[in-house]
Amino acid sequence: MAPPSPRVVVKVDLKKKPWQQTQPLHNRWHPDIPSVAEVKIGEVFRVEMVDWTGGAVKDDGSAEDIKNIDLSTVHYLSGPIKVVDEDGVAAKPGDLLAVEICNLGPLPGDEWGFTGSFDRENGGGFLTDHFPCATKAIWYFEGIYAYSPQIPGVRFPGLTHPGIIGTAPSTELLRIWNERERNLEESDHKSLTLCEVVHQRPLANLPTTKGCLLGHIEKGTQEWERIALEAARTIPGRENGGNCDIKNLSRGSKIYLPVFVEGANLSTGDMHFSQGDGEISFCGAIEMSGFLELKCVIIRNGMKEYLTPMGPTTLHVNPIFEIGPVEPRFSEWLVFEGISVDESGRQHYLDATVAYKRAVLNAIDYLFKFGYSKEQAYLLLSCCPCEGRISGIVDSPNAVATLAIPTAIFDQDIRPKTQKVPVGPRIVRKPDVLKSTYDGNLLITKNPSSSS
Amino acid sequence: MAPPSPRVVVKVDLKKKPWQQTQPLHNRWHPDIPSVAEVKIGEVFRVEMVDWTGGAVKDDGSAEDIKNIDLSTVHYLSGPIKVVDEDGVAAKPGDLLAVEICNLGPLPGDEWGFTGSFDRENGGGFLTDHFPCATKAIWYFEGIYAYSPQIPGVRFPGLTHPGIIGTAPSTELLRIWNERERNLEESDHKSLTLCEVVHQRPLANLPTTKGCLLGHIEKGTQEWERIALEAARTIPGRENGGNCDIKNLSRGSKIYLPVFVEGANLSTGDMHFSQGDGEISFCGAIEMSGFLELKCVIIRNGMKEYLTPMGPTTLHVNPIFEIGPVEPRFSEWLVFEGISVDESGRQHYLDATVAYKRAVLNAIDYLFKFGYSKEQAYLLLSCCPCEGRISGIVDSPNAVATLAIPTAIFDQDIRPKTQKVPVGPRIVRKPDVLKSTYDGNLLITKNPSSSS
Amino acid sequence: MAPPSPRVVVKVDLKKKPWQQTQPLHNRWHPDIPSVAEVKIGEVFRVEMVDWTGGAVKDDGSAEDIKNIDLSTVHYLSGPIKVVDEDGVAAKPGDLLAVEICNLGPLPGDEWGFTGSFDRENGGGFLTDHFPCATKAIWYFEGIYAYSPQIPGVRFPGLTHPGIIGTAPSTELLRIWNERERNLEESDHKSLTLCEVVHQRPLANLPTTKGCLLGHIEKGTQEWERIALEAARTIPGRENGGNCDIKNLSRGSKIYLPVFVEGANLSTGDMHFSQGDGEISFCGAIEMSGFLELKCVIIRNGMKEYLTPMGPTTLHVNPIFEIGPVEPRFSEWLVFEGISVDESGRQHYLDATVAYKRAVLNAIDYLFKFGYSKEQAYLLLSCCPCEGRISGIVDSPNAVATLAIPTAIFDQDIRPKTQKVPVGPRIVRKPDVLKSTYDGNLLITKNPSSSS
Amino acid sequence: MAPPSPRVVVKVDLKKKPWQQTQPLHNRWHPDIPSVAEVKIGEVFRVEMVDWTGGAVKDDGSAEDIKNIDLSTVHYLSGPIKVVDEDGVAAKPGDLLAVEICNLGPLPGDEWGFTGSFDRENGGGFLTDHFPCATKAIWYFEGIYAYSPQIPGVRFPGLTHPGIIGTAPSTELLRIWNERERNLEESDHKSLTLCEVVHQRPLANLPTTKGCLLGHIEKGTQEWERIALEAARTIPGRENGGNCDIKNLSRGSKIYLPVFVEGANLSTGDMHFSQGDGEISFCGAIEMSGFLELKCVIIRNGMKEYLTPMGPTTLHVNPIFEIGPVEPRFSEWLVFEGISVDESGRQHYLDATVAYKRAVLNAIDYLFKFGYSKEQAYLLLSCCPCEGRISGIVDSPNAVATLAIPTAIFDQDIRPKTQKVPVGPRIVRKPDVLKSTYDGNLLITKNPSSSS
Repeated sequence: MAPPSPRVVVKVDLKKKPWQQTQPLHNRWHPDIPSVAEVKIGEVFRVEMVDWTGGAVKDDGSAEDIKNIDLSTVHYLSGPIKVVDEDGVAAKPGDLLAVEICNLGPLPGDEWGFTGSFDRENGGGFLTDHFPCATKAIWYFEGIYAYSPQIPGVRFPGLTHPGIIGTAPSTELLRIWNERERNLEESDHKSLTLCEVVHQRPLANLPTTKGCLLGHIEKGTQEWERIALEAARTIPGRENGGNCDIKNLSRGSKIYLPVFVEGANLSTGDMHFSQGDGEISFCGAIEMSGFLELKCVIIRNGMKEYLTPMGPTTLHVNPIFEIGPVEPRFSEWLVFEGISVDESGRQHYLDATVAYKRAVLNAIDYLFKFGYSKEQAYLLLSCCPCEGRISGIVDSPNAVATLAIPTAIFDQDIRPKTQKVPVGPRIVRKPDVLKSTYDGNLLITKNPSSSS
Repeated sequence: MAPPSPRVVVKVDLKKKPWQQTQPLHNRWHPDIPSVAEVKIGEVFRVEMVDWTGGAVKDDGSAEDIKNIDLSTVHYLSGPIKVVDEDGVAAKPGDLLAVEICNLGPLPGDEWGFTGSFDRENGGGFLTDHFPCATKAIWYFEGIYAYSPQIPGVRFPGLTHPGIIGTAPSTELLRIWNERERNLEESDHKSLTLCEVVHQRPLANLPTTKGCLLGHIEKGTQEWERIALEAARTIPGRENGGNCDIKNLSRGSKIYLPVFVEGANLSTGDMHFSQGDGEISFCGAIEMSGFLELKCVIIRNGMKEYLTPMGPTTLHVNPIFEIGPVEPRFSEWLVFEGISVDESGRQHYLDATVAYKRAVLNAIDYLFKFGYSKEQAYLLLSCCPCEGRISGIVDSPNAVATLAIPTAIFDQDIRPKTQKVPVGPRIVRKPDVLKSTYDGNLLITKNPSSSS
Repeated sequence: MAPPSPRVVVKVDLKKKPWQQTQPLHNRWHPDIPSVAEVKIGEVFRVEMVDWTGGAVKDDGSAEDIKNIDLSTVHYLSGPIKVVDEDGVAAKPGDLLAVEICNLGPLPGDEWGFTGSFDRENGGGFLTDHFPCATKAIWYFEGIYAYSPQIPGVRFPGLTHPGIIGTAPSTELLRIWNERERNLEESDHKSLTLCEVVHQRPLANLPTTKGCLLGHIEKGTQEWERIALEAARTIPGRENGGNCDIKNLSRGSKIYLPVFVEGANLSTGDMHFSQGDGEISFCGAIEMSGFLELKCVIIRNGMKEYLTPMGPTTLHVNPIFEIGPVEPRFSEWLVFEGISVDESGRQHYLDATVAYKRAVLNAIDYLFKFGYSKEQAYLLLSCCPCEGRISGIVDSPNAVATLAIPTAIFDQDIRPKTQKVPVGPRIVRKPDVLKSTYDGNLLITKNPSSSS
Repeated sequence: MAPPSPRVVVKVDLKKKPWQQTQPLHNRWHPDIPSVAEVKIGEVFRVEMVDWTGGAVKDDGSAEDIKNIDLSTVHYLSGPIKVVDEDGVAAKPGDLLAVEICNLGPLPGDEWGFTGSFDRENGGGFLTDHFPCATKAIWYFEGIYAYSPQIPGVRFPGLTHPGIIGTAPSTELLRIWNERERNLEESDHKSLTLCEVVHQRPLANLPTTKGCLLGHIEKGTQEWERIALEAARTIPGRENGGNCDIKNLSRGSKIYLPVFVEGANLSTGDMHFSQGDGEISFCGAIEMSGFLELKCVIIRNGMKEYLTPMGPTTLHVNPIFEIGPVEPRFSEWLVFEGISVDESGRQHYLDATVAYKRAVLNAIDYLFKFGYSKEQAYLLLSCCPCEGRISGIVDSPNAVATLAIPTAIFDQDIRPKTQKVPVGPRIVRKPDVLKSTYDGNLLITKNPSSSS
């Protein structure tokens, strides 16, 4: 007899706000957030999730919602889910939780997503010194394909994946996170830059009661207050997985997560219809609501067995991933390179971040020559299935990073050609991305010698 | 009538030293190094090259040659080759030179290569603070496959490519290079570390007459002296391409190089039978002698047409690449993750270099559990076709970098498993890599909480 | 504003019988079956469908339903769907209808399928002289993967596709079909074999009122009677597409169908979760109910533009297909070969059918050595993503056909090995496929010299 | 110490005729042809080979050499090579010989090949009733790519492979071959057709002293006479492998050959730079001279272990193949379909040969619309990396066969399009294939309703 269809263990109602859902959502990492569901190993279960902003960004004609977004409220996660073995014994600290992604996709009836770049005063993005304005593009889905009215001439199959999947941290791990992130912020709290090159702020996002949502913990109670002041924000990926943004974690992938608390307390969210390596514009994937169908296995004592701590405690570990066999198949790639020399011409030492920034800038300016606005290119490279590689990391002083773009996603041939020398943007494509004004007064980085 | 076989425009004799070759080699970038051959666009021509050390590393039972290598002599390049169009008119500054790799491979009769990590006092590598000793592994080729007596249990098809391909810099570009690299070295010339994490020295390699080889320019002459004091070292990739180490530049790939001098003056060398993204151990690819069969096209005025300067002058550009359709096809990958938290537990801000270091360390320790020594794993991840990705670069404070390893290269299943819990290294594999002593007194980085 | 979710133009209720559906189904090809829905070009619409038997085969512990199936009732198709352009003008005979498969999958709540081989007296299959009994295996889906309790040790990702998609034939085309198939049946109507090798019956399936379902045409009326006596059966693929069974027609594929009647009258059905090339056991794919999300474009006058008749009339054409970019990615294949020499040792002349039969038999016997029953192997090769190739078709007298099996679908390494010589089936796998008795008295073909 | 470069065990001199080579070639299968070399298991050795015609076809401007070719002299093979284990004990009947293709390619200095279709009176081809004339196209190689002056607008990477690789038959197996092929020829020896559809002659090629070359057996001796009258021709693939024409047997592939005589006596030849599935024009691959680098392993008693006889004796077996991991990677395919209805409109019963013929004819006529001559298309589909599939083999009465063409090999977009309706061949491409007159008087098959 057939096993039942995947059991829905977390259901969301998109007509309700994140804090109104029957099974409450949460937007922080903390061991004391109670689980909202329990699953057995081997069972296929379904988890639904809102988009990472919980519906704050609309399918409308303005980028104001991106500009004014309250980042203290993200990411809205579904869970925590307690995992037990066939005898009902919960996963234990020290185990490894193997999570297989059997299926995933958008929520039926909500087949659209958005990509944006934040205002420089409110989150920014990898190139925020070049692109200080909030921008937005809407994507509609036709089955496996996405297209955007704001970025005409492009259509590509999604490599859909959850941006965030992770287990709950233990009290000790949480303490480690808070301490090291506070140290970073305090060490340099007035700076808006790193190496004068990477602009974004804040440096870290420390716990705050503002915008905090803690599942079954009732807001305003003493317990809520305590947890809210300790609970880690969801922005960065950490030892528990979390916001890894590994774009290939699609159907058939497996994620081996360390278990830090009884029951593992798995949470997930931030569905991406598609994302490029690096998710450069920050709100850079095609963000959407969606569902996951998952199957878990507990590898008892697996942390010791398979992970080696990389730091002062046994908790300084990282998850392991196995990539599934089903991916869009591209045969031709155009590759842009960056070296660790910045826009001012200054030499950096083996800095892959600087090198990748330059590779991305090179790609954006290249696409501009084919008729895309730079903002279109920036958002496109955030969300299309492009690959960001660390090609050379030892040949001092230059790190070499590369960005490879599949040429098949364009409706024109974007390869360099001998014959014709087009003048200016080759095809004027209209319309453009939605864009807000930048009202701050920070300087924009320009390519000093670029005419465009 | 058939066109002739590819014309051999640079021939090397492996029984001779690099400075004894009939067509002299060079190991510096300078506009005044005379071309040794001329090719027409459209013609398929063959360039032979010695390995990057010019035969300094032997297929023997010791790592002493790696330990004592004189890095002032590398990389030995073949060329420069002047490129002209069908009317005999040379490529001109501002053009783009499209170089297609029609074929490549080891030199017949010399089907072997080596991978090494340098001594910390002499070059080091990405993980030199963890691995201060010089090590060496020899690889033998069976057609497309490589295997090493020092790393048993592994065999993989090569994705063969030239580590270095580039055009000659103009006088002005050379001046820019020397200035910015000198600034770096002077700014911090006593440090052995960056961010207390990335250890390698020196920070940059400035021009020096020591070890300098300049092709047709006779050693000891006044001209030689002048050029040697100006000519850029070949270690880092730069605006002219050079040491890009892009591991996918194999058969069928195209490289679009900016032209800075009359004739383009194309040079190439540093053949790799295979390399992993990052080439982490520095001497990290499977280094070998080899040949390239190339075909060039000149895109007149192509620099302006296709490249956008990213810095204060119009020379601050980077090449573009097109990846060929023939690559080893792997279907299963195991992926290791790193975040920008270092071994001491300190938080870094969106630093992809730190994140990638941690991803690599995670992978090495994982493979150690399957019976490989850490040195074997370090060299293996330098040269096997693994992929290094920048997965997340915006989620402050953590950059997320990943290292994906194709599981098919191992003769055992290295995926995590539920059933058995092996104790200690699962298969004791002998022998190990060749290894020298480390005679310096710098501290080694350890994982504080790791037992291994 | 987002376009609406795909409009459901055909909805099925799996609790009802095929003839009870609100939008009536049909199981014949005829120009006079009225359309049940209308779609515009460019719109993404959803079509649901029952499995090809309309629920006659159950997820139970017996193969009796397979044995006793009434093949006069298959395949139950959804449609016909009338296609019009943006001005509401219908597709016209002579046009080409480009149908893009945007998405597809099982119907939610019905995530299972079946594979069977028919009794030799009732349909048979490609190897029915070797396997005269009805057999059945049930497959359950875990997202992209399928597994079967009856074929343990195997799990694979599906390359889901519709077995049948086609346009309605014109009256003239229908006449051609009926005439040529009647000629075949009459020419040799008593034979059960072809070339003494290919056993199956009947030779063709001529129109019959038995089991006939004609959509909106009410059963028992005079019109129904007339149409039923003319309407073509759905078993074979023909000029209108129909039962092509092209296993790669998955997400992102396009089908260019000739239009023979006003509105094109597109019908589809026979969803396959997965199928091997050839669908050898006849009921050979993983048969299921499911849905398609489609988008149509009309290429006006496209038949003349793109198709060339291959026969006495302009209607003797075939569709064209474009395969999508998303397929399971396998890197290792084991390939079995067959030549056109039959089981009795008799030489046939360039007969690809005989050669493929032998390739399949070779593969079945090979898998038997690894512990699968021959029936398990037969069903598995019908439904797993194996590739059947015509490798050589000119080297008289032998056609060479090959069957390539992806090795990753097995939980054991099935490649030949030097070291160990297992005795007998290597792993006894239980249970086996569901199997009925064969009550006929036709001779079974044996490999005379095989011991198994 | 490095193992030596692959030992050259068979060397050919292209300036000499096949019968003048130092290590004599052979063009028949017979157990008594003495081995010309011996190799040990595990050793990588190199075998050179002439093209299959031994230089009879020239790189010139005429197809007369194709028209007048003496097919009694083909294929010229290198070998036989005796295989022994590490103790010097030869492979024995009943063993399985695993041959790994480590490397292969054209012979340096001879980088060209040819594709042809034979005159209908002299061999013909799969479509010889449509194309009765001898035709020829020359291909030149640029590394991995081939292009032809006679088929402009096309360039593709080769999937190079040996058309023939096999072991020597035993006396008994030889007797079986001769008997069954004689039976075929005698049964129907006056017919030029099969099913009135497949035209080619002769039906089989029986042993003959004409053109016979037997390696070390001296021509004209009594022994030579005896062997020549018994030795099997090399045209068809058979139980020993032989002319399999499996186009994916490239670098990294393994072939598991049954051993019928002491030492296995491996022979190989008929190098193909590239071939499409089916090699439809008979002389259909890009035929060339070349080399193989091979490594053998003996699986003792492997025939019983891994092969199951499919016929009256234990010798009725077929080899097994493993496909290597390095293939050109195409992402887009256009697929043509054929069903088993012939050009006259007659219905055939599940005949994959007829179905494939129609698929090929459909593809040829389609390409004609894009400006290629039908002869160009015929030769192109013989030699480019297209895939021929048996898609449906059970849906009586129609077999469905498909031919998939990678769209990337053309310099134009050959997909159907909505917008423009070109008239006549879209681009007139010159020149055309080389072509001889057809001087016979057999009827040509036409598409009755085709205007072209």
